[in-house]
This record gives sequence, C-alpha cells and structure tokens, in this order.
Amino acid sequence: MRLSEVAERLGAVLEGDASLEVAYVNSLEKARPGEISFLSSDRYRSLLEKSQATAVLVPAGFEGSASCALLRVKNPDRSFGEAAALFYEAPPTPVLGIHPSAVVAESVVMGAKVSIGPNCTVEGCVTLGEGVVIGSNSVIGYGSRLGDEVHLHASVTLREFSEVGDRVMIHSGTVIGSDGFGYSVEPDGSRRKIPQVGIVVIEDDVEIGSNVSVDRARFGKTVIGRGTKIDNLVQVAHNVTIGSDCVLCGQVGIAGSAKIGSKTILAGQVGVAGHLTVGDGVIANAKSGIVNDLEEGTHVMGMPAVPQKEFQRGYLGMLKLGALREKIRMLEKKINSLIDK
Amino acid sequence: MRLSEVAERLGAVLEGDASLEVAYVNSLEKARPGEISFLSSDRYRSLLEKSQATAVLVPAGFEGSASCALLRVKNPDRSFGEAAALFYEAPPTPVLGIHPSAVVAESVVMGAKVSIGPNCTVEGCVTLGEGVVIGSNSVIGYGSRLGDEVHLHASVTLREFSEVGDRVMIHSGTVIGSDGFGYSVEPDGSRRKIPQVGIVVIEDDVEIGSNVSVDRARFGKTVIGRGTKIDNLVQVAHNVTIGSDCVLCGQVGIAGSAKIGSKTILAGQVGVAGHLTVGDGVIANAKSGIVNDLEEGTHVMGMPAVPQKEFQRGYLGMLKLGALREKIRMLEKKINSLIDK
Amino acid sequence: MRLSEVAERLGAVLEGDASLEVAYVNSLEKARPGEISFLSSDRYRSLLEKSQATAVLVPAGFEGSASCALLRVKNPDRSFGEAAALFYEAPPTPVLGIHPSAVVAESVVMGAKVSIGPNCTVEGCVTLGEGVVIGSNSVIGYGSRLGDEVHLHASVTLREFSEVGDRVMIHSGTVIGSDGFGYSVEPDGSRRKIPQVGIVVIEDDVEIGSNVSVDRARFGKTVIGRGTKIDNLVQVAHNVTIGSDCVLCGQVGIAGSAKIGSKTILAGQVGVAGHLTVGDGVIANAKSGIVNDLEEGTHVMGMPAVPQKEFQRGYLGMLKLGALREKIRMLEKKINSLIDK
Repeated sequence: MRLSEVAERLGAVLEGDASLEVAYVNSLEKARPGEISFLSSDRYRSLLEKSQATAVLVPAGFEGSASCALLRVKNPDRSFGEAAALFYEAPPTPVLGIHPSAVVAESVVMGAKVSIGPNCTVEGCVTLGEGVVIGSNSVIGYGSRLGDEVHLHASVTLREFSEVGDRVMIHSGTVIGSDGFGYSVEPDGSRRKIPQVGIVVIEDDVEIGSNVSVDRARFGKTVIGRGTKIDNLVQVAHNVTIGSDCVLCGQVGIAGSAKIGSKTILAGQVGVAGHLTVGDGVIANAKSGIVNDLEEGTHVMGMPAVPQKEFQRGYLGMLKLGALREKIRMLEKKINSLIDK
Repeated sequence: MRLSEVAERLGAVLEGDASLEVAYVNSLEKARPGEISFLSSDRYRSLLEKSQATAVLVPAGFEGSASCALLRVKNPDRSFGEAAALFYEAPPTPVLGIHPSAVVAESVVMGAKVSIGPNCTVEGCVTLGEGVVIGSNSVIGYGSRLGDEVHLHASVTLREFSEVGDRVMIHSGTVIGSDGFGYSVEPDGSRRKIPQVGIVVIEDDVEIGSNVSVDRARFGKTVIGRGTKIDNLVQVAHNVTIGSDCVLCGQVGIAGSAKIGSKTILAGQVGVAGHLTVGDGVIANAKSGIVNDLEEGTHVMGMPAVPQKEFQRGYLGMLKLGALREKIRMLEKKINSLIDK
Repeated sequence: MRLSEVAERLGAVLEGDASLEVAYVNSLEKARPGEISFLSSDRYRSLLEKSQATAVLVPAGFEGSASCALLRVKNPDRSFGEAAALFYEAPPTPVLGIHPSAVVAESVVMGAKVSIGPNCTVEGCVTLGEGVVIGSNSVIGYGSRLGDEVHLHASVTLREFSEVGDRVMIHSGTVIGSDGFGYSVEPDGSRRKIPQVGIVVIEDDVEIGSNVSVDRARFGKTVIGRGTKIDNLVQVAHNVTIGSDCVLCGQVGIAGSAKIGSKTILAGQVGVAGHLTVGDGVIANAKSGIVNDLEEGTHVMGMPAVPQKEFQRGYLGMLKLGALREKIRMLEKKINSLIDK
C-alpha cells in the first residue's frame, strides 16, 4: 500500500514521499524498509533516529527530525493499531447461526446475526442480543443474559444467571459465575459450604482476558463496571464491585466484597484484601498487597501497600542497612574513645 | 415470606413482629426494608444500628439493641446462607442420564442418578458413584474413579487415573492430573521430561474452585485431604500432600513435594517452596513466601516468611529508616562537637 | 521385575543381589522393600542410610555405603524416571483418526498418524504434522500450524494462526493466542482496544503446563524459544520473547514486550515488567519482581528485584532493626552523659 493511501485511511498528515510502498507494521527497533512504525513517547526519540522504518506515526505537534517519512496523527498509539489492521489478513468472520454440533436449549431467545460455534452448550432461558458471537466449545449457563455484540471466544464458561452488557469481549478459558469461596466453620473445625446464590454482572464495554475467574456473589451481585479491562489469570472473588474504566493487569487477585473505584489501575500480581474500599484513580504498583482502605488518587506499593515513595525510600534504606550499621559501629568507637579519655 | 416462617425454617428465636414480610437477604449496609441481614462479628455493631433491614440474624447471646427484628441463632453466618437459599430460585436440577451429545466409553461403570451433560467426554474404565453430576463440556480421563455425589461443574478436566472421594465439588476450568513439572538436566543444558506416572487423590468433602491446576505425582500420589477447600487459580504441584480441613485462598501456589498439615490457612497469593513441611494449623498472611519448614500453629508473613509480628515490626522499621538515619546524623554531630572540644 | 533386568533396561551397574524382585519406585523416605529409590543429591545421604528401598539409583562415582543394592548410573534423576515408567501401566494410546464427534474443517491438512479426540473443533486451513495428538474438547483456531509429534492434552485452546513446532506438549486448560492487553486511552479516560493482529510462535520441544495464558502479539510474534518449559498458570503477555531452554515455574507473569534470554530460570510467582531485557542464565528467586533490565547470569530476589545476597542481607537487617534501634538508644545515652559531664 502506498503511503498516500495509508495517510488517507488513518487521517494522517504525511511528510515525505507519498509514493513509497509499505506492507507491514513493526516497532522502531525491529522495523525494516517497507514497514511503518510509531513514536508513542518522547522517551523513544533516539530509536526513531536509528529506525529503518519507511514511515513513522508521530504526534501532530512532533518537532524533531527523522530520515524517514512522518505521519502526523492525534494519537500515534491508536493509529498504529489501525495501521496494523490495514495489513492484517483476518480469519473468516464467524458463520452466522447455530453450528449443528452445538447443543442449544429450545427456550433460548436470540437477536439477529448470532453465531454459536461448534460443540457449544447453551442452557435454557438464555437471552442473546444482536450480533452475539459464541466461540467453539463455550458453555452458557441457565438464564444468562448477554447484550448486543458480545463476543465470547472459544472455551469460555458462563455459569447460570450471568448478566453481560453490550460489546463485552471475554477470552478463552475464562469462567464467570463460579461459586464464591464461602464457608461457615463448624465446631469441629470443618467447613460447611455457604450457598452462593448471587450473580455476576458485567457492564458494557468490558473486556476480560483468558483464564480469568470471576465468582458469583454469595447474595446480590459481583459487578465489573463499564469499560473496565481485565487481563489474564485474574481472580475476582464473590461480591466484589469494580467501578468503570479500571485496568486490572495479569494475575491480580481481589478478595471477597472488596470495592474498587473507577479509573483505578492495579498492576500485575497485585492483591486486594477482602471488604476493603479502594478509591477512584488509585494506582498500585506490581505485586502490591492492599490491606487497608485507600483514598482516591493514592499511588501505592509494597506489601502491606503504603504510598509509593514511602515504600521506595524504605526499601532503598533496607538495602543500605549494612552501611548504616557500619556508621554506627564507627560512632560507637568514637564514643568509647571519648569515654576512655 | 413471613418472619415467623423464616424463624421456623432456620430454627431461630424471633424477637419482633412475626407478621413482617421479607423477600431477600442483603448486607447490613445495603439491606432495605423487606430484607434480612446478619451480624457476623461484633465489629459491625455500628452498621447494625443504622441498618434498614427488616430483621437481622444475631448470635444467640447477643446483648445489644436494634430497631429491627432480631433472629437469634447459633451461627449467624451459616443461618444467613440458609436464609439466602430460602429466597433463591434455583436453576433446574441437572437432567439425569447421559446427554446424547456426550461421548461416554462403553466400559464406564456408573451408579444410580448420574447426570452427564452435553459435549462431555468420559474415557474408558471410568467409575462414577451414585448421584454424580458432570457439567457440560467436561472431560474425565481414562480409569478415573469418582465417589458418590461428586459434582463437577462445566468445563472441568480430569486426567487419567484421578481418584475423587465422595461429595467433592470441582468448579469450571479446573484441571486435575496434568503432568508434574519435572525434568532432568542434560549435559548441554537442555531439559528432558521425567515421566509423570503418579496420580491425584482428592479425598471426601473437598471443594476446588475454578481454573485451579492440580498436577499428578511424578510417582505415587498428589493428595488433597478430606474437607480441604481450595479457591480459584491455585497451583498444586506434583507430589504435594495437603492435610484435612485446610483453606487455600485464591492464587496460592504450592511447589513440588511440599507437605501441608491439617487446618492450615494459606491466604491469597501465598507461595510454598518445594519439599517443605508446613505443620498443622499454620496461618500464612497474603503474599507470604514460605521457604522453610514451619512448626504447628505458626503465624507467618513476608517473603521469606517469618513470624508475623517479627515481619510487621521489621517492615514498620523499614518505613521509618529515614527518621533513624536523621537521628544518627544528629548523634554524629554531637560526638564531633565533643571531639572538637 | 528382577534387579538384573532393571539394571539392564536402565544401563546401570548393579551392586547387590541380582535376583531381588522390585515392583515400584518411591522416595528414599517412603520406599519399602520391593521398591527402587534414588539419590539425587548428596544432601539426602542420611536418608539413603535409613531407607528401606530394595535398591537405590546412585551416581556412577558414588562412594558411600548402603545396606541395600546399588544401581550406578550417570544421572539418577533421569534413570529414576525411566524406572518409574518400567512399572507404569499406561492408559491406552490415543485412537488414530478423527473421532466422529469432532468438528474438523475440510481444509485441514494433516500428516500420518494423527489423533483428534472427541468434541474437538479444528477450524479451517489448519495444518497438523505427523503423529499429532489432540485431546478431547480442544479447539484449534483458523490457520494454525502444528509440527510433528505435537501433543495437546484435553481442553486446550489455540487461537487463529498459532505456530507450534515439533514435539511440543501443551497441557489442559491452556490458552495460546488470546488477545494482548493493549488499549489506547481516550480523552475521557476510557480505553479503546488496539487490534491484536500478531501471532504466537512456539518453537520445538517446548512444554507448557495447564491453565497457562500466552497472548498473541499486538503485531509480529510472541515467541517461546526451543526447549523452554513453562509450568501451570503462567502469564506470557503480547510480544514477549523467551529464549531457549528457559524454566518458568508456576504462576510466573511476564508483561508485554519483555525479552527473556536463554537458560533463564524464573521461580514461582516471579513477575517481569514490560519492555525489559532479562539476560541469559538469569536466576530469579520465587516472588521476585523484576523491574529493571538484568545482565546475563544475574541472580536476583525481592521486589524490586536486586542481587540475591544484597536482598537477603537487607531483609535480615530489616528484621533486626529493633536491636539496631536499641543500640542507638544506648549510644545516645552515653553521648548525653558525656555532654553532661
């Protein structure tokens, strides 16, 4: 594809030879002639100068120079995604209708343009909105309701009565609505299961990665708020409430009844204890263990998690304790020699 | 349902208007008129006073007052679960028999009242006890033996020769009996698979959450003891032995050949190194990394895990190192001025 | 089986009574008469002396004595695996051909001796090499290419265009090729999905455990290098590159675009931040959080990860801060009494 066409399709302002041909996208480092790259942050400016890319997507106001062609856009990150899609030969779109090998209960109600893949099981009283795609070997439990344009990839499992909003995407291996982890302790120390009779509600525009577990509520609802994005292997326990536009990175775990605000970012492997309230816009660095309520906008780190700078200073101090002990030994010597005088 | 009927069904002593109607359960905070709540711990006493619940389950000996009706019971936590079940409209019970889309080997032996859901695969020489329920799209490997009243939810995978006791429940996405992670190192640094010819034994009354991995033994058995409860996304490696009535919270990982006692509680994201012995009744706080044997009843925290109080004191000290350094600087000044005299 | 036969089959030099009968393998601790055990490390020498095993596999140059028969071999660890296999009654080998319940697209091309289990879905334009085994209820996405002797266990999901080398084994519940976790941030703080149009490449002789998630690249490839072994519940994000012969233990998480060298060992629950370069032969202790590039051969620990000894000294120092503070208090007293003089 010519650069002129790429610029037109992406709504970019082109600086350079419009007749150059490009056929793929790549990172600044790996790009070779014939490929388009992008500058997502000024940090990578030095990579831009050395890049062999034929053209690079840069922010509209970019002031540097480059030996390659420039494509000025509002959001290079986003336009790069669109550029990648330009050169992508997608797999065929899912076949509409119910594959003959799928087992779909008669009481299932579905909108137009639904696709149910091979070997799926859709239990009774399920409602599927318009344009829903259910990948192969997925299971939709009794009474679940899926909105429009929901896309479940292959091997997804939804337990009974799950409620899924519009434009939700769920990746393979994920389980929605498994029983919450709740037991009462008997006098002999054994545990007795507490019935888990609540549901899971997933609001519009949520995306959930692969092999995620979201437990149904003990009673009431476990809620994933509108626009929230959840990465792979995340655990969301019973009765958790997550606000809108949150980001939960890989292997995060949230214990029962915790309440997460909106636009909160939990980095990889963060844990949140049960029954806590984590405010809006909180950022938790990777591996933080949140064991106390956190106010809006806090940035934390460590286990137990404390304000990020406090943790970093403390940790650095810990690593330098040897020097501190040495200094104290020296002071002690000085004191003792003063005493001996 | 009238409060009088609720009291009767739960075996509770009612204080208040027996004719009041209730229709659901909820937490003290969220409950509205017409709902029942519960006081699980004296900590929530202030919530009880403000609650709008029509009735609250309290311990038999509760001495406080409340504006709502009280339902005195032995164990409010447990009775609340029963109350929730009273108002729950359950999905239809699983259809007995083998769904025509399931693939069940002829050599499978099964007790009465077994239900095998759509798209299941049950391999040869499997034995299923009375009342076993196998959810849709599950796979039972060759020669596995399941006891009575075992309930596998949808999309569970049991590898060959798994042994599962009575009344065991396993949630969706869980894999029992995958190969242990064992290799011998070759002279060139590559790794050669060691055959994993052992099995997994799950004793009676165990419950295992969703997306859990329990590896088969290299030889002999990986054992999950009677009554132990395992939350989602937990890793149990080859040849691990877990005692009875343990609690393994979400995302716990136990490395090969570790031995866990009985009534031990591992909080979320705890890790246990291989070949260790962790005694009965140990408690490990969230994210602890257990790298040494632990005696019965120890309560640990941190990575490496040490006694909880020792860790907490150390961590607090770490966060206050700045003040300590400041103090040392001051002492140094004093000493130097003494020397200069 | 007689010891003479065992020795012959394992290529071992036997010291002891060749006519003794053995029927199983076990650890030094648990072995009983009639069983074979092995000494993997000199650390376990005391267990060898007490062992009831009939024969023990020891390194060729072993100089100690034992009351049982000895089987001298090059690599006792490896020979023990072979010994275990001698006594193992394996499940039947997978039936060749396509099970009638599997849904296999017409355009699938396959080599000789392929086995596709019940309830599998194999989408269009997939290529399967010779001797490929696909376990029950697995899904192979459009255009994927699997080499020779690939073994997918039951319930594995490969998304479209996955490329899998020869002799690769993937365990149940694992998902290969789910979308990378990539979004651009819109002005209102919501997130917009960036198309994930790359693929996953798994090189020869890789083994991947159960419930693992390997994301497809945003563009280009996510690569798992030749001979690398991945344990259960591991997260490998988009565009990650892992070298050859690495070991990733249970619940490790690697964030997007990180580059891991060869022969690197990440112990359980280690996390690696995005866009980092981790050199060859790095060792990271359990639960380490790698947030900086690491040079070849580094051995790290802690979060943030630092050289192992540095962390251990610091952590030990942290636990002894109470004593340090006490010492400082004492020095202060001395100083004050000097000043008061």
